[in-house]
Amino acid sequence: MEDLYPSRYSSEPEIVKRKDPVIHADRSKDHESPLSTEQLDFYEQNGFLQIENFFSEQEVSEMQKAIFELQNSNQDSESDMIIREPEGNEIRSIFKVHDSDEYFKKVANDQRILDIVNHLLGSEVYIHQSRINYKPGFTGKEFDWHSDFETWHVEDGMPRMRAVSLSIALSDNYTFNGPLMLVPGSQNYYVKCVGETPEDNYKESLKRQKLGVPDQESMRWLADQGGISVPTGKAGAITLFESNTMHGSNGNITPYPRNNMFMVYNSVENQLVEPFSGNQARPDFIAERNPKLKVNK
Amino acid sequence: MEDLYPSRYSSEPEIVKRKDPVIHADRSKDHESPLSTEQLDFYEQNGFLQIENFFSEQEVSEMQKAIFELQNSNQDSESDMIIREPEGNEIRSIFKVHDSDEYFKKVANDQRILDIVNHLLGSEVYIHQSRINYKPGFTGKEFDWHSDFETWHVEDGMPRMRAVSLSIALSDNYTFNGPLMLVPGSQNYYVKCVGETPEDNYKESLKRQKLGVPDQESMRWLADQGGISVPTGKAGAITLFESNTMHGSNGNITPYPRNNMFMVYNSVENQLVEPFSGNQARPDFIAERNPKLKVNK
Repeated sequence: MEDLYPSRYSSEPEIVKRKDPVIHADRSKDHESPLSTEQLDFYEQNGFLQIENFFSEQEVSEMQKAIFELQNSNQDSESDMIIREPEGNEIRSIFKVHDSDEYFKKVANDQRILDIVNHLLGSEVYIHQSRINYKPGFTGKEFDWHSDFETWHVEDGMPRMRAVSLSIALSDNYTFNGPLMLVPGSQNYYVKCVGETPEDNYKESLKRQKLGVPDQESMRWLADQGGISVPTGKAGAITLFESNTMHGSNGNITPYPRNNMFMVYNSVENQLVEPFSGNQARPDFIAERNPKLKVNK
Repeated sequence: MEDLYPSRYSSEPEIVKRKDPVIHADRSKDHESPLSTEQLDFYEQNGFLQIENFFSEQEVSEMQKAIFELQNSNQDSESDMIIREPEGNEIRSIFKVHDSDEYFKKVANDQRILDIVNHLLGSEVYIHQSRINYKPGFTGKEFDWHSDFETWHVEDGMPRMRAVSLSIALSDNYTFNGPLMLVPGSQNYYVKCVGETPEDNYKESLKRQKLGVPDQESMRWLADQGGISVPTGKAGAITLFESNTMHGSNGNITPYPRNNMFMVYNSVENQLVEPFSGNQARPDFIAERNPKLKVNK
């Protein structure tokens, strides 16, 4: 298959234009979407959309309880699905919760969510990846700028930009507790990163992105074009963002943690092929390769 | 001299009430202050005050030019007054600029500033410390929560809470580029930190505060009481904050640097004595011990 988005092959970065639509359903079908035209416009223009109070207070407190039960029960686990802080033993992420846990499977298959992502991707979808992220107070570490798509393309073999990430805020997000930062408009540009992908890069990169990080000049250009947006708000909000939208987060010295559940929906018409880098494919818990869990409209 | 604010002597933290007024001039003399009653109320209640557009655009661009000239001319300096990033050689701070540099001496003695700080401290003042802080884009590091007074008291021998810090924003401050975060109301509580002060702690602590950092429980208590304030705005704004106001800053992965000039004005009636910890006194460029530069009304 032709590599439409080559990256990490040169010592010089380059910015190229996106070759895929941002919203894959025809815009003449806006009325079939659970999102309003204004919301669709916002998503198309900015590459992300926050919806506040998406989950009720009761749903939020159930989810908050469930993520800590899961964290506690995995405290001594040696599973590859558990990612810990670079320095220390604290659990930072638990992967594949849509598959390993009945409760989170239900959340990931919430019909309200599926109706939205089916429309954005213009097809049926499956879950490419899911995880719980725990960003503790006082010691939460930064996460460098990156396009998820760049990683998924190069390391997982995702052919096209036809996936959407969804983050469910399970803590209140303030500007000061290391919230998600997004660069509006960046979904329209693909930054070819420098360097090569070493084997097993996924183990390191989930802790701290190194390869697949845009160069400073490209990053400055993107931010000067679109600015930096920081969706804040109460737990229970969701943020949808396009697979190629540049994002990252600062560290968090405040006492307030920032936890979320994170799912990636990929179009069934965009299933993974061999990684474009010549890499070995990453394990299934990171990138669902032969999806058993089909999610239908 | 009796130690009114002991710290770092126990393995248990403790919070005690402030024993000094926040505004040292009598509040019946508000009308003599260049600050409005509302501004004085805000400062007294919150422990800080931001004043936007304090310096004109022309003054700001002069200062911006001057700090980079100073940084360039000190690139290879081995002076103790130059503090570099923990990992790397980049200059993070240059100390005692009010004394070593004619231009910054003029800025530090700006009559508009002196009129304010003389009033807040209810006396004539001198400059306890000054520095330029360079917080670069992409790689700016966090600075842990601390009360300046705790350090100045324990390590420099500042007897009472009768000093005020002033930061001149020389970059635009956004919520996302590692801005100063302050805990409103924290000036009214003194957190006795745990541990002992090792010799020469100042060399390490200017890079990364370790001793003199409040315990997490106290910090959470302060933040739950008062919240966290993040003054943002254009370069040229000043932020005054009381010596004991708890503050810190997150790291900065954005392309936008955060530079400022920082001065500490101390009351001439609050001059340094022997450090209360049994420490050796820190060098004069950090804590002005026998101030030559008297600053008069």
